[in-house]
Amino acid sequence: MDIFKFVTPEIIFGRNSLDQIGASAARLGARKVFVASDPGVLEAGWAGKAVEIIKGAGLEHCLWTGITPNPKDCEIEEGVGIYRSENCDAVLALGGGSVIDAAKAVALMATNGGTIQQYEGIGKVHSPLPPLVAVPTTAGSGAEVSQFSIIVDVERKIKMTIISKSLVPDIAIVDSGILGTKSSELTANTGMDVLTHAVEAYTSVAATPLTDVQALNSIRLIARSLRKSVASKTDLVAKEEMAMASLQAGIAFSNAILGAVHAITHQLGGLLDMPHGEANAILLPHVMRFNLIAALERYAEIAEAFGESSLGTSKRAMAEKAISAVEELAEDIGISPSLSAVGLQEEHIPELSKNAIHDACLITNPRDMTRAQIEKLLKEAL
Amino acid sequence: MDIFKFVTPEIIFGRNSLDQIGASAARLGARKVFVASDPGVLEAGWAGKAVEIIKGAGLEHCLWTGITPNPKDCEIEEGVGIYRSENCDAVLALGGGSVIDAAKAVALMATNGGTIQQYEGIGKVHSPLPPLVAVPTTAGSGAEVSQFSIIVDVERKIKMTIISKSLVPDIAIVDSGILGTKSSELTANTGMDVLTHAVEAYTSVAATPLTDVQALNSIRLIARSLRKSVASKTDLVAKEEMAMASLQAGIAFSNAILGAVHAITHQLGGLLDMPHGEANAILLPHVMRFNLIAALERYAEIAEAFGESSLGTSKRAMAEKAISAVEELAEDIGISPSLSAVGLQEEHIPELSKNAIHDACLITNPRDMTRAQIEKLLKEAL
Repeated sequence: MDIFKFVTPEIIFGRNSLDQIGASAARLGARKVFVASDPGVLEAGWAGKAVEIIKGAGLEHCLWTGITPNPKDCEIEEGVGIYRSENCDAVLALGGGSVIDAAKAVALMATNGGTIQQYEGIGKVHSPLPPLVAVPTTAGSGAEVSQFSIIVDVERKIKMTIISKSLVPDIAIVDSGILGTKSSELTANTGMDVLTHAVEAYTSVAATPLTDVQALNSIRLIARSLRKSVASKTDLVAKEEMAMASLQAGIAFSNAILGAVHAITHQLGGLLDMPHGEANAILLPHVMRFNLIAALERYAEIAEAFGESSLGTSKRAMAEKAISAVEELAEDIGISPSLSAVGLQEEHIPELSKNAIHDACLITNPRDMTRAQIEKLLKEAL
Repeated sequence: MDIFKFVTPEIIFGRNSLDQIGASAARLGARKVFVASDPGVLEAGWAGKAVEIIKGAGLEHCLWTGITPNPKDCEIEEGVGIYRSENCDAVLALGGGSVIDAAKAVALMATNGGTIQQYEGIGKVHSPLPPLVAVPTTAGSGAEVSQFSIIVDVERKIKMTIISKSLVPDIAIVDSGILGTKSSELTANTGMDVLTHAVEAYTSVAATPLTDVQALNSIRLIARSLRKSVASKTDLVAKEEMAMASLQAGIAFSNAILGAVHAITHQLGGLLDMPHGEANAILLPHVMRFNLIAALERYAEIAEAFGESSLGTSKRAMAEKAISAVEELAEDIGISPSLSAVGLQEEHIPELSKNAIHDACLITNPRDMTRAQIEKLLKEAL
């Protein structure tokens, strides 16, 4: 086995763990906390509650909610300006993947300076970030534990993937009580995003035993609880299992990186501002079919995690069952069957493929992929 | 699920990863590294190699090898004196569990002061430790990732269990190339120590999904590779799998804590200076039999991890198979069948039981245990 590295933040998991943000920030040495959130989280009351907890711990704060889905470079610039003018010295990210990614980017710029563009790629961050606590409000992105931040370059219309160990938050606080309060559609989309993380991490060329066990258990939990979580706002056991699935998939993909689904959907998000989870969900079975010859054993294990029986079944047939299990799940929870339904048009495909081929996530895909193959795959998914 | 916390160091795993100790210490801000090791590791050449790598990274060092198995409070005092008089500002632990535990204790005392006795128990450490890099030379203790340090109180003849998140090293470097160079007997003893960590963590009342997946995979790896690793010095795949098993069990038990086996063997080590791994190996099946009624499902899963088939088998019968699988493995690799063979006499039992009942590890044992039950169990294991 080649040398590998594995990093996770300190994790605090469980109902009402939001209460620990104040003490956590204080323990990291914070005096004035930059609270990054968005209008939806503010309206749901969570940002206000977070501010009260921070005050209760004797800390100052500055609340910033200027983040949109698929966060943009100009928003980051604005956030950094506020962080500096308010003399903040720590960051709390409270939101979905977009909020956490944006908060990471603000923290990065606060101590590293320059433009966000210069950190695109792997390992470009040189100075440590200020203390960073991340609290996800949707079970999906895994950003609370990951070394990723994805920011849209508005001018180039692409998503920049920034990967650095420095982007791993110091403390991730996962409060399953917060995660329950979202729409059925958002639960479905973000749940399929989690599944995509787990599958891509498990079949990544950079997978290790430490990431494999987390990815496989994430798939088991999704197979058991995503349908129930979409079906009912009050099934708290299912919500908690999806919160754990998201966390485990996050630990896995942060260290094993991802694959072709994310290489393509990062660019779909950059081009069309499309919901990331839904785009992943549509593309996942297509990419799995393409990758199958590279990862037969691993696909068979994914099928087992979905509860498929291997008795009297060849490895090849078991691998197929992994794909059909994913398709069945997506259909059951109402995911669109095609990318055209979510706004992709054939004329977008050449540019999309051109951008995807340069995405850092393609490096760890188990099967080599050319631009022509990406175009073909996208046409099939239209 | 109750709120839980999960902490691991940054991990670097793989052959020749020892080469990264210099850069790792430098990255943590070290200028003069206190290298804690022991005469055996020095003689094998690893301590000298470590010193060269540290020098190569432009750092100063001070080498200390005054540690014996079951490290003692007086040794820690001596180590702290040297750390201070040499103006060190970081610690590298290079050795087995005893060396890493001692290095943690020196680091603890360096910034917290007082006597080591005042940190016995859970969460008594108040100041952060200096940067700490841990490199295990035996696949067994898990100390490189754990929040434990076990130090003998020479006057009281007991082992003190110190548990604190602050004791988790900053970086754990697991070089499977180093781990291969030990005797067959030591491989057997430390391997059974790993198994005990995994089983106790998996059946702990503080187990979580994040620790469960690591513990179960550790058991799978042990079932597959411990016999081979004992059989041959040159089976490098088996050595690497045991290194991974040790790491995964370490991540599991550091966060889920342990159980009655360790509560008792900590005290055996304190009283008789007995090899910790062998004492665990002898006691494990006895404690498993006692705990069985508290953890039927989990025992059945342990049996599956050992490769036992559950087809046509009741849960109760599967749970029994977990115990027999452990007994078989211990017999195959030549573990003594009784504690009397390793020096325990019946007259020791009352004092041993009295000390064990106060050990922090008993709190997470799945079945309540009285002093009389510990005495009975020890008599059966004699």
